[in-house]
Amino acid sequence: MERVKCTLQYDGTLFHGFQRQPNKRTVQGELEKVLKVIHKGQSISIAASGRTDAGVHARGQVIHFDSDLGIPERGWLHALNTQLPDDIRVRSVEKVTEAFHARYSVIEKEYHYFVLNCQEADVFKRHYSYHFPYELNMEKIEEACRYLEGTHDFTTFSSTKSTVKGSKVRTIYEASVKKEASEIEFIFRGSGFLYNMVRIMVSVLLDIGQGRRQPEDIQYLLERNDRKLVGKTIDAHGLHLWNVIYKEME
Amino acid sequence: MERVKCTLQYDGTLFHGFQRQPNKRTVQGELEKVLKVIHKGQSISIAASGRTDAGVHARGQVIHFDSDLGIPERGWLHALNTQLPDDIRVRSVEKVTEAFHARYSVIEKEYHYFVLNCQEADVFKRHYSYHFPYELNMEKIEEACRYLEGTHDFTTFSSTKSTVKGSKVRTIYEASVKKEASEIEFIFRGSGFLYNMVRIMVSVLLDIGQGRRQPEDIQYLLERNDRKLVGKTIDAHGLHLWNVIYKEME
Repeated sequence: MERVKCTLQYDGTLFHGFQRQPNKRTVQGELEKVLKVIHKGQSISIAASGRTDAGVHARGQVIHFDSDLGIPERGWLHALNTQLPDDIRVRSVEKVTEAFHARYSVIEKEYHYFVLNCQEADVFKRHYSYHFPYELNMEKIEEACRYLEGTHDFTTFSSTKSTVKGSKVRTIYEASVKKEASEIEFIFRGSGFLYNMVRIMVSVLLDIGQGRRQPEDIQYLLERNDRKLVGKTIDAHGLHLWNVIYKEME
Repeated sequence: MERVKCTLQYDGTLFHGFQRQPNKRTVQGELEKVLKVIHKGQSISIAASGRTDAGVHARGQVIHFDSDLGIPERGWLHALNTQLPDDIRVRSVEKVTEAFHARYSVIEKEYHYFVLNCQEADVFKRHYSYHFPYELNMEKIEEACRYLEGTHDFTTFSSTKSTVKGSKVRTIYEASVKKEASEIEFIFRGSGFLYNMVRIMVSVLLDIGQGRRQPEDIQYLLERNDRKLVGKTIDAHGLHLWNVIYKEME
């Protein structure tokens, strides 16, 4: 038995999210369907760094599975990409030891969220960037990002549907924003993210950019641990799982 | 009666090309459907700078139509974008005189063709860039571009299905190529382009980049006026109608 780690990208537009669901097209479902064919009818389960919702994209999702076929790394890359639909691509394959687990060995995840900040929408970005036509004060948003960084209880910034039991304390190593022409890119790197956490943070940051809240409100919101204090969860399609970092394996 | 000029973009992926066809989803069909609603059931025909094939995208297609509704420019922009599907966007609207015609007043058109030149495909570019995994000599391609520029009979580089009667002489003002990371962008500006002309030129340029032909072969190919001398027409989805330039109106 060998453990195979794959880094993959997918366009979330036409998937009902990552997780397998009966009669729905999901990323996990497509991957396991192909693995079953390669294993001549034997079901193979995959584990991922985490799920992504419907519409969310991935540039660097990581999964693993176990196989006794003994296929070399380049062979896996070819076998998978030949049979997968064209909105999922395996970018690299690596054989790892059983000490590696796509979910439990994660030490850092990175998400980017794109906002198109101009009057008219752009057809080429409609599935990848959230269109927001109102003026934004970027300095206020940058200032607010400073309050998100660090170790906090993020209950206010997570869905009440979150299934996480226990602590909602997470550490954000980086919360930053840059703007190039009309495209705004939010970058979040952290030890982990709660359900909908990035999308709620971006929603609050846009409120701050519009002057509907002040940057220092973040501190108050973090302390209150109450999801009802903040507005809606922003649309999924601007969100991209960018990268997953793992413990160094010896 | 007023003549209204619109500059629009569309994602060609889900259209059976630009031109209206019965029972098929086309860009012209969608535009005329919306114009009919705005004109309370009256059919309005549009004229475009030219057609585009299925899968071809537009960043700056230009159309015109005549209307007696007297709607101001910003009103047209809003009315159209509110009702058009999200893969067509009107970027600007301008009232023009009857001397303007979207097709006959064109003095220059610009097309870009994108090639993704690396081993693995990229899901986010799969509809917008042609994936070509083989090594290319960019200097040879640049050299070949020089031979395409200027005034020539482009019969060899046009589809035999071309419906153009008369001269196939066209002037190319610019044929150039640039590469950034693994993305190659071809740029063609000319007085006009024959049917499939850009896609056949790119196909020959890739042959040259692979060493299957020499840059100076272009001259010979142009002189022979024979479509059968060159290979296949490259895929539509890498092609983008970039910009259309018109005579200055007094």
